[in-house]
Amino acid sequence: MTLQERIFAGKGTIKADLALTGGKIVNVNTKEILQDDIAITGGIIVGIGDISDKIGDDTEIIDITGKFVSPGLIDGHVHYESSMLTLTHFAIAAIRHGTTGMIIDPHEIANVLGKRGIDLVLSEVQDLRSSIFVMIPSCVPATDLETSGAILDTPTVTSLLYNDGVVGLGEVMDFPGVLDADPGKLDMIEETLVLGKRGDGHCPGMTGSDLAGYLCAGISSDHESLTYDEAIEKARMGMAVMLREGSAAKSLKEFIPRLIEDGVALDSFFFVSDDRHPEDLIAGYMDAHVRTAIDLGIPPIDAISLCTINTAKHYRIDHLIGSVSIGRRADLVVLNDLEKFTIDRVFVSGSTNGSPKPVYPAEAFDTVRFRNIYPEDLCIKSDTPVEANIIVAVPDEIFTDWRIENLHPEGGILHPDIDRDILSIAVIERHGKRGSIGKGFVSGFGFKWGAFAQTIAHDSHNVIVTGTNVEDMA
Amino acid sequence: MTLQERIFAGKGTIKADLALTGGKIVNVNTKEILQDDIAITGGIIVGIGDISDKIGDDTEIIDITGKFVSPGLIDGHVHYESSMLTLTHFAIAAIRHGTTGMIIDPHEIANVLGKRGIDLVLSEVQDLRSSIFVMIPSCVPATDLETSGAILDTPTVTSLLYNDGVVGLGEVMDFPGVLDADPGKLDMIEETLVLGKRGDGHCPGMTGSDLAGYLCAGISSDHESLTYDEAIEKARMGMAVMLREGSAAKSLKEFIPRLIEDGVALDSFFFVSDDRHPEDLIAGYMDAHVRTAIDLGIPPIDAISLCTINTAKHYRIDHLIGSVSIGRRADLVVLNDLEKFTIDRVFVSGSTNGSPKPVYPAEAFDTVRFRNIYPEDLCIKSDTPVEANIIVAVPDEIFTDWRIENLHPEGGILHPDIDRDILSIAVIERHGKRGSIGKGFVSGFGFKWGAFAQTIAHDSHNVIVTGTNVEDMA
Repeated sequence: MTLQERIFAGKGTIKADLALTGGKIVNVNTKEILQDDIAITGGIIVGIGDISDKIGDDTEIIDITGKFVSPGLIDGHVHYESSMLTLTHFAIAAIRHGTTGMIIDPHEIANVLGKRGIDLVLSEVQDLRSSIFVMIPSCVPATDLETSGAILDTPTVTSLLYNDGVVGLGEVMDFPGVLDADPGKLDMIEETLVLGKRGDGHCPGMTGSDLAGYLCAGISSDHESLTYDEAIEKARMGMAVMLREGSAAKSLKEFIPRLIEDGVALDSFFFVSDDRHPEDLIAGYMDAHVRTAIDLGIPPIDAISLCTINTAKHYRIDHLIGSVSIGRRADLVVLNDLEKFTIDRVFVSGSTNGSPKPVYPAEAFDTVRFRNIYPEDLCIKSDTPVEANIIVAVPDEIFTDWRIENLHPEGGILHPDIDRDILSIAVIERHGKRGSIGKGFVSGFGFKWGAFAQTIAHDSHNVIVTGTNVEDMA
Repeated sequence: MTLQERIFAGKGTIKADLALTGGKIVNVNTKEILQDDIAITGGIIVGIGDISDKIGDDTEIIDITGKFVSPGLIDGHVHYESSMLTLTHFAIAAIRHGTTGMIIDPHEIANVLGKRGIDLVLSEVQDLRSSIFVMIPSCVPATDLETSGAILDTPTVTSLLYNDGVVGLGEVMDFPGVLDADPGKLDMIEETLVLGKRGDGHCPGMTGSDLAGYLCAGISSDHESLTYDEAIEKARMGMAVMLREGSAAKSLKEFIPRLIEDGVALDSFFFVSDDRHPEDLIAGYMDAHVRTAIDLGIPPIDAISLCTINTAKHYRIDHLIGSVSIGRRADLVVLNDLEKFTIDRVFVSGSTNGSPKPVYPAEAFDTVRFRNIYPEDLCIKSDTPVEANIIVAVPDEIFTDWRIENLHPEGGILHPDIDRDILSIAVIERHGKRGSIGKGFVSGFGFKWGAFAQTIAHDSHNVIVTGTNVEDMA
């Protein structure tokens, strides 16, 4: 719709496509629940209240008397790649859980496909009904210890920030670089601030003067707090604190009771998933956040605000989404029950239909490129016994531990030891670049035979292969 | 300060200029009051809490134990020209009332000096310690019924929107133009939205479908509600509602008790003055808003939020001002008493000193230009008696009334009639353009002799002269 058409739809000169009548609107602007009709034209909410002058012969009228209408939920920070789905399929899967908006940080795609990947994401966003906004990954590669598929240098990042639909700079996980005033990182942040956009943070365990330095750099949010005390310090210092409940890290059950106990206003907080694995996505998404928050004692309207208006205000897109308001996108969740947040149906841009399926270019496929690997490529050679560092994987934790074990070579090679749960591990560069292989030993998987490999390997997404013997690994 | 210096100041590598110790901070982020020390460097808050590592040999330490620290107050919408002061002097006068930030809409200057006037304002803002942000006037001239000093056409307005320090498009008082989809107005609004900035509204008495049309145009705020019911409808529909208490219009005492009664969340509201006449500015400014709100039953921290964080969030400058947070400007009000909001001292960008006095160019002076006026220029001629429309001025109201009176000519001229309080009035074009004179009769002033003229004449600011006889008027 043009702006003129929107105005005329608001005035009622152009009749509505759709009217939802009799529902009780969860008004996150005034924190009230009021029964009102809603008129929708061209995917936009064009009337609330008396909409009789907007009803035409072709207006579809849906009676939702007795039901509630919540704004569509927003995931304030997600790397959707962890869902193993394309953005379109992820967005469609999210809709059934009332999640119609997302702030995505396509950090994984950027690590594999670079700027071309971001361009593809931005293009895909355009075709989606869901309200997807993009943060430009700030730290690609995330480390110089391995080879990534691409580098997003400072000029590339800053140029990408100018795109419509880009709401800021993705989590600046290189916080040591920020605190050391790395010129490239500072240039990215300054450009973000000049554009009036947001710079997301990533600062687990950061408090005190380091936090002050990070905030002084212009970083405005964080989703990595390890403890409640850390989270509340960040909020008090002026940071937006993302309450994360994802497939990996979970914090709602620890943080929310403390927030209630302390009587803290929730304006500076919003809900995020960070990552949502496919099996979890089937079970629920931001609707699960809302239900958990309500169960923990937050009033429904505040729980809903935590993943609607709060998020939209933070990312400065509250004129587009985040509330059931006139002129905003008709992203609406019709609820049978407010306290239980049971979803009746979901409208995305005024429609219950999904989005068109995108066609990806050839270059987005076959990105795993490396030469043939032979068992001897994966061996660690030694003629003498060694005290070896063993990586120790810890269940349900992101961080790994380590221990030292004595390994004795056989035939000049250090072998895995199943009895001590010491497996071989290797990282194989798969971007068709250096072809290098990093090798070591790992404990914690408990394999008795065979090997396992994957390219989901944060953040550079090379091949990681683990096994009981190098033949199976190769 | 460069971004690097800010980071190092946050970390404590660069020592603080100033430390305020022992105060109780009004934290509008979490709505808590917590005792904490504050470190300030280069006009920025660089530390809150344990600031010991930021104290150096040259750090000035001020003990404010027992006192409170509020964020500097913000006037969310003001035409500062009504103060009869330059921007610099207005800003300095505001500081004593804890008002360190303003969203100014220099509509009057634009009507006299046009783009050159706006450029001068933008330049003056740069030199001020106070946190002044500019809305670009959208309706210059405001009417085609009189001659203004300048025209801000659509290309001029949109180009001005790009300036740093400009946070949006000034109140679009031409709401009929918006509702009729006037292409020029729509272009201005679209450019504003593309830039992620705000379009201020001006829609007294507007409700229902007209309001829906206006909101669909992308207008995000209003300060002209005539009644509480109108204001609350606007807030519920998704508009930011400015609670106005100025020298002309006043609404706090009517609206606030109703807001409290209805239990409405105040997130969508903020305080503005719109106009502040000099005699009122001496008595108080946004501090008076806070005191009034507290007297009417709003908790102090919420009253303060209504002219700090709420305003900053609306205009998307909460990363700069609006809270006592790290990385924000050190615009701080030290209070002896929170409930009474009694001000001890005020810091603007970390300083209690004023701003440098600006030097204005010659073209900003002598803008009143018209030929000699003679009594006969101001006469209304008639050979027969007439039923004349008389403008009726109403005390303390913006709108005028009217009545019809019979006037009898003497010597071919219609004369004022002091007994019936019918005075002559004329509007004399003073921009050195057409030199035209509009003439009529007015009631309500009650002059018995003489005449009175002024160039404060919204919105084109021509000379308005009123008197008991044309000789004195000339």
